[in-house]
Amino acid sequence: MDFEHSARARDYIDRVSRFVRERIVPSEEVYASQLVGSQDYRKWRIPPVIEELKAEAKAAGLWNLFLPDPELGAGLDNRDYAPLAELMGHSPLAPEVFNCNAPDTGNAEVLHQFGSEAQKERWLKPLLDGEIRSGFAMTEPDVASSDATNMEATCKLVGDEVVVDGRKWWTSGAGDPRCGFLIFMGVTSADAGRHERHSMVLVPLDAPGVKIERMVPVFGNLDEPHGHAEISFDNVRLPADHIIGGPGRGFEIAQGRLGPGRIHHCMRAIGMAEVAFERMCRRATSRIAFGKPLANLGGNRAVIAESRMAIDAARLVTLNAAYLLDVHGLAGALSAVSQIKIIAPRMLQQVTDAAIQIHGGQGVADETLARLMATARVLRIADGPDEVHQGVVARIELAAYK
Amino acid sequence: MDFEHSARARDYIDRVSRFVRERIVPSEEVYASQLVGSQDYRKWRIPPVIEELKAEAKAAGLWNLFLPDPELGAGLDNRDYAPLAELMGHSPLAPEVFNCNAPDTGNAEVLHQFGSEAQKERWLKPLLDGEIRSGFAMTEPDVASSDATNMEATCKLVGDEVVVDGRKWWTSGAGDPRCGFLIFMGVTSADAGRHERHSMVLVPLDAPGVKIERMVPVFGNLDEPHGHAEISFDNVRLPADHIIGGPGRGFEIAQGRLGPGRIHHCMRAIGMAEVAFERMCRRATSRIAFGKPLANLGGNRAVIAESRMAIDAARLVTLNAAYLLDVHGLAGALSAVSQIKIIAPRMLQQVTDAAIQIHGGQGVADETLARLMATARVLRIADGPDEVHQGVVARIELAAYK
Amino acid sequence: MDFEHSARARDYIDRVSRFVRERIVPSEEVYASQLVGSQDYRKWRIPPVIEELKAEAKAAGLWNLFLPDPELGAGLDNRDYAPLAELMGHSPLAPEVFNCNAPDTGNAEVLHQFGSEAQKERWLKPLLDGEIRSGFAMTEPDVASSDATNMEATCKLVGDEVVVDGRKWWTSGAGDPRCGFLIFMGVTSADAGRHERHSMVLVPLDAPGVKIERMVPVFGNLDEPHGHAEISFDNVRLPADHIIGGPGRGFEIAQGRLGPGRIHHCMRAIGMAEVAFERMCRRATSRIAFGKPLANLGGNRAVIAESRMAIDAARLVTLNAAYLLDVHGLAGALSAVSQIKIIAPRMLQQVTDAAIQIHGGQGVADETLARLMATARVLRIADGPDEVHQGVVARIELAAYK
Amino acid sequence: MDFEHSARARDYIDRVSRFVRERIVPSEEVYASQLVGSQDYRKWRIPPVIEELKAEAKAAGLWNLFLPDPELGAGLDNRDYAPLAELMGHSPLAPEVFNCNAPDTGNAEVLHQFGSEAQKERWLKPLLDGEIRSGFAMTEPDVASSDATNMEATCKLVGDEVVVDGRKWWTSGAGDPRCGFLIFMGVTSADAGRHERHSMVLVPLDAPGVKIERMVPVFGNLDEPHGHAEISFDNVRLPADHIIGGPGRGFEIAQGRLGPGRIHHCMRAIGMAEVAFERMCRRATSRIAFGKPLANLGGNRAVIAESRMAIDAARLVTLNAAYLLDVHGLAGALSAVSQIKIIAPRMLQQVTDAAIQIHGGQGVADETLARLMATARVLRIADGPDEVHQGVVARIELAAYK
Repeated sequence: MDFEHSARARDYIDRVSRFVRERIVPSEEVYASQLVGSQDYRKWRIPPVIEELKAEAKAAGLWNLFLPDPELGAGLDNRDYAPLAELMGHSPLAPEVFNCNAPDTGNAEVLHQFGSEAQKERWLKPLLDGEIRSGFAMTEPDVASSDATNMEATCKLVGDEVVVDGRKWWTSGAGDPRCGFLIFMGVTSADAGRHERHSMVLVPLDAPGVKIERMVPVFGNLDEPHGHAEISFDNVRLPADHIIGGPGRGFEIAQGRLGPGRIHHCMRAIGMAEVAFERMCRRATSRIAFGKPLANLGGNRAVIAESRMAIDAARLVTLNAAYLLDVHGLAGALSAVSQIKIIAPRMLQQVTDAAIQIHGGQGVADETLARLMATARVLRIADGPDEVHQGVVARIELAAYK
Repeated sequence: MDFEHSARARDYIDRVSRFVRERIVPSEEVYASQLVGSQDYRKWRIPPVIEELKAEAKAAGLWNLFLPDPELGAGLDNRDYAPLAELMGHSPLAPEVFNCNAPDTGNAEVLHQFGSEAQKERWLKPLLDGEIRSGFAMTEPDVASSDATNMEATCKLVGDEVVVDGRKWWTSGAGDPRCGFLIFMGVTSADAGRHERHSMVLVPLDAPGVKIERMVPVFGNLDEPHGHAEISFDNVRLPADHIIGGPGRGFEIAQGRLGPGRIHHCMRAIGMAEVAFERMCRRATSRIAFGKPLANLGGNRAVIAESRMAIDAARLVTLNAAYLLDVHGLAGALSAVSQIKIIAPRMLQQVTDAAIQIHGGQGVADETLARLMATARVLRIADGPDEVHQGVVARIELAAYK
Repeated sequence: MDFEHSARARDYIDRVSRFVRERIVPSEEVYASQLVGSQDYRKWRIPPVIEELKAEAKAAGLWNLFLPDPELGAGLDNRDYAPLAELMGHSPLAPEVFNCNAPDTGNAEVLHQFGSEAQKERWLKPLLDGEIRSGFAMTEPDVASSDATNMEATCKLVGDEVVVDGRKWWTSGAGDPRCGFLIFMGVTSADAGRHERHSMVLVPLDAPGVKIERMVPVFGNLDEPHGHAEISFDNVRLPADHIIGGPGRGFEIAQGRLGPGRIHHCMRAIGMAEVAFERMCRRATSRIAFGKPLANLGGNRAVIAESRMAIDAARLVTLNAAYLLDVHGLAGALSAVSQIKIIAPRMLQQVTDAAIQIHGGQGVADETLARLMATARVLRIADGPDEVHQGVVARIELAAYK
Repeated sequence: MDFEHSARARDYIDRVSRFVRERIVPSEEVYASQLVGSQDYRKWRIPPVIEELKAEAKAAGLWNLFLPDPELGAGLDNRDYAPLAELMGHSPLAPEVFNCNAPDTGNAEVLHQFGSEAQKERWLKPLLDGEIRSGFAMTEPDVASSDATNMEATCKLVGDEVVVDGRKWWTSGAGDPRCGFLIFMGVTSADAGRHERHSMVLVPLDAPGVKIERMVPVFGNLDEPHGHAEISFDNVRLPADHIIGGPGRGFEIAQGRLGPGRIHHCMRAIGMAEVAFERMCRRATSRIAFGKPLANLGGNRAVIAESRMAIDAARLVTLNAAYLLDVHGLAGALSAVSQIKIIAPRMLQQVTDAAIQIHGGQGVADETLARLMATARVLRIADGPDEVHQGVVARIELAAYK
């Protein structure tokens, strides 16, 4: 039993940590000043500073850190990448700067694992080079996506074409001017087995019949210049070779995405919680009321202690899930991955709420805390709401008592 | 012991309820379409529909319902007004339509109770007529306002003038194009007793030296066309008769504002919670997953039950506080008022969070739920954070054990 | 709307309060010294002081206060009796002293409402005179009693006899040497409608075939000299006139018991919470650590405030349920009664837990706090676990959304 | 990073696990039948089965597993011993059977680390041989022990004697007929530095002036045959060589005890939680209500999932604390040790409470669940209440913000 990071991970931790602190965080203001806010996503532009930082990170060898393939990426396993994902939670710009932001990471993994050589050449290469971005079109507005069998969108084979129809939302990143393609998941043959009826299809964003209906607001925010799109697909006809891994493998591919993706999300959430926690401590030690720093008033120290405890526990359970995924695969990590998916976002919500409270009026005005609160709240729903994951954990436990 | 509303209250409940349901809620979309969003508050305009609705409400006798004076207002006590405030929580437009929105209500009460005849004529009359709006400048950005002795802004007497200096924020309503004046609270004589050093001054928004520095965002939202202003006061010289009730009475006046104001806030929060609750129930009964309506899945019924229980308990404790305020005055209601100030916003946050969760992705995209969540979060801080009110409640209890 | 007790209630409150404080609480030590603890319930004896106190209370007119019948009892409605039940929560001896303890109260109400004249003469009279005690045999060890249709015990009509068979537990009071009879609930005709198949039967404790199998411990405590019995009924043959109200009315009678009984339980729980709360405050103000009374350390004041808030809210919701029961009957109070059944025990558990914590080592050694903790924990299960009541509350809410 | 136990630990885990399951748990009933319950501790006797099991465990090499010294004990570090402590939480008999129960373990460590050769020969040897038991007399009834400077008992040097005076309680194990000695902590020189004024003294239980005043009940239970004694020390004169490590080292010695002791407690608590959890799952899958196993009703699966999550998280944080203690020493593990001291007992209380609830009436009658609930509640106070540990955690965090 050894709770230290490997030498390799420690080296990356040092470098990523320094890059985030010295290069990315100080650029946040520039980024904000370059950002053109607009209700109309067609007017969104990428702040130039982000491309500069990307070039810098790439040059520094801090690029595609998420990809376990040592030739195309950093070759890190989940355990070693996890602390880097946490560090990327320290700035909203960081994941993209290191070419490690969702859903591109998941899309890249899917293409890397299941894509044909032609697909890799056309889509994966520019994605890993940071030239294009991508979206993932799975969730549907009209049905409860927590139940995958509800999915209504289709991608049927007609001759040598695949025909994509339906409506998706929460396709994050589809508003990005650089977004090149979507991975679309839909039903290919409704009468196949429950886990064999779906396929994943590569859909260029400019294919005829693809229409961005609107950008979905998150607590009133459009998250420009990336956005979360609601998209309609109307008789979108593509060559059948746009299907990834062949028809009927959608469910299998989706499953493979989930483990690492959830670990990334959770570790970033832990990094975000550290940001909120640091602000809470700064405020608690610098703000005076009733003649004392807030830290010495009432139960504030208990609040700080509970926040630290929640963060540290969330980190340990997430690292353990990463370890299990690396060593025992998704099957062996299934309960652990569902557990962290509940624990980390809830922790982020708790710590951010506490940080807001200790800031008083400044807490609800602060943009960072507002962003963290919204992120926490979204994460308790995205990739399966808490309730679905509780169901998974309970099912695994109760299997022993049949 | 009788938990029914009075006949008079029941009559108003019927009329307000119908007006909200039939006239105001259906106008929300019109309002939204008429609203000009802008980062620059100078461009804000009042949607015409609001003035039409105000005229209608006035004509229907549903006007200034908050004012206990039977000649100038409806003459209702806190008990009878409370359920009307709850109903106004059903639409964000309602408080203004009935000329019952904060901080105008508190400002009107202050002028009504402590203002000179001249002050009433100049400021109270147009306020009660709905012609102008007003702001309340008390909280300061640089000090913890939970401790009133921290206040740094001043309003010193110099000759026959009062000179106002300092910086305030969270002056809600100051961005409204119709805002005519602020009630400013500051220190007049720093060496007077702790509760005799402050004064309240009527400050026209266009007085030389008054400058709106910015509108403070609430979770990223500027709440146009009202706004929460950060305002600097630089050597603002006004005739001394702009002081309300005379110098040194600021603290006393502020205290009087608090009881009713908190009851209004809490009752509106209860109305808002009913809105979230209704949405939760609608979603739970209409959305299907795993072959069942959400209401029949897992612990969702427990969530619904706990929400109902929290709402009903919050209502009862708030009505009891209103009763105590009416019958025993602020001194007799002190603990109860602090209790509801903790209970109602926390309940709104709980119920809204639950409603969001049951909505899944729609929950974080929904504008109403986003607004309710932000309101709940703000209310746990505004008018004294939870911690200050816990301190009040504990102090009153422990006084018996000396 | 009027939150004050009636003049009549206030008079009783004064008298009961004084009697509890001056006569009962000071007798607790005597009672303890007279109590013969034994694992064998046959050796239990009633401490003489209890009969002396009963005589005194009877003489003072503080007797059968629970019974709404003005001739046989005090004639108080639920609203007026509620605060007296709260006061009885201040001492574990009080309910019996005033002849107001469960399950005798419920049994008396059943006999009073549904009993024949002969039944009243034989069972009700001595019960109301305080000469005998009684038990209620409903819950069964082998099936989940939260689902009444699970009930397996039977009371079949055979000729002019009713034959009682089955096993019951949690028959509280059956270990009391004065226990004269049980009200047994069982299935009379399994093929009748779901709510017409049960009957209630008066079973003398010494009827052949009735056997007390054991006294069930509550967190290790037998609660002598009353006890919670597990009882087997083996071919117990009784004249058919021992059925209350006639065959098939068991469910209907059981329903009627529930409303008032739950209000009594909840109000007593509130009284118990006041006992824990008072101890917490005493300890917080008298115990010194790190140079300060505990009340001035960390979050202790917040704990005290939250306890007060929870108690006061629980009282208001319970009084409201009592009011609804009085004015609108059980149907109109159904949700409210289920709500308080969740809220009050949970609150008692919270407040007692907090009181224990603030007492440190003394907290887990203290007999009163141990008793309150056990009572709270039992109440979250007895008379329907929280989960069943959440189900009732949710069902009533969701009925509007069909 | 490696979350697997070492090969050595895995071997012990197998053997201890089997011994607990096959030998100890099946002996619990025999133990209970041999136990003589009595209010008078002088009548307590050790059930013979315990000595038989001890001999068996010793012969199997499962003895003194806690002691890091490879010659006298198993030579395991905290990481490797931790999972064994968890397994010992599966039966209340297990810690003693393996000669690993508190406070003997802490006392043995103190003697092993700080004792003279003579002290080791006289006290440590029979303790490690399982021939005698011991007590630890630190907490005092009249002062808040959470603040060590409150300690009032004294052990003054007079000539070549140490004179022990004062009153202690919560001296667990002092009621055991085999208890041979106590380690007493008191003030030697009140004017020495805050951390140099205390000493630890070896006090034979039969020394003149030592008097057991009573056994302190824990939620009404005396925990025979070990007991938690309140003891008075009246002019107890002992040779000065009964001081451990020399005068003034009491605080230093006490500190050293804390790290491992808390890890043992927390790991046992986790084992206990697994017992409660298993019962909960068994009940949930076997008990039927409303036509379904309880596991399929309402939020029960969420409860089960949350219990599993809380247990697993508590285990990981405790193992991490053990790791830190092994690798970085107490200083490096200080925050982590305080964190687990809060997290593990709270988790045990949560899981046990949930298990009780799902058992319904059986839950409050069950002896095992009652014992676990009491243990959880005690652990939130013993060895420093939650509030003190929150203070430690917060202090360490805030040190960075000065």
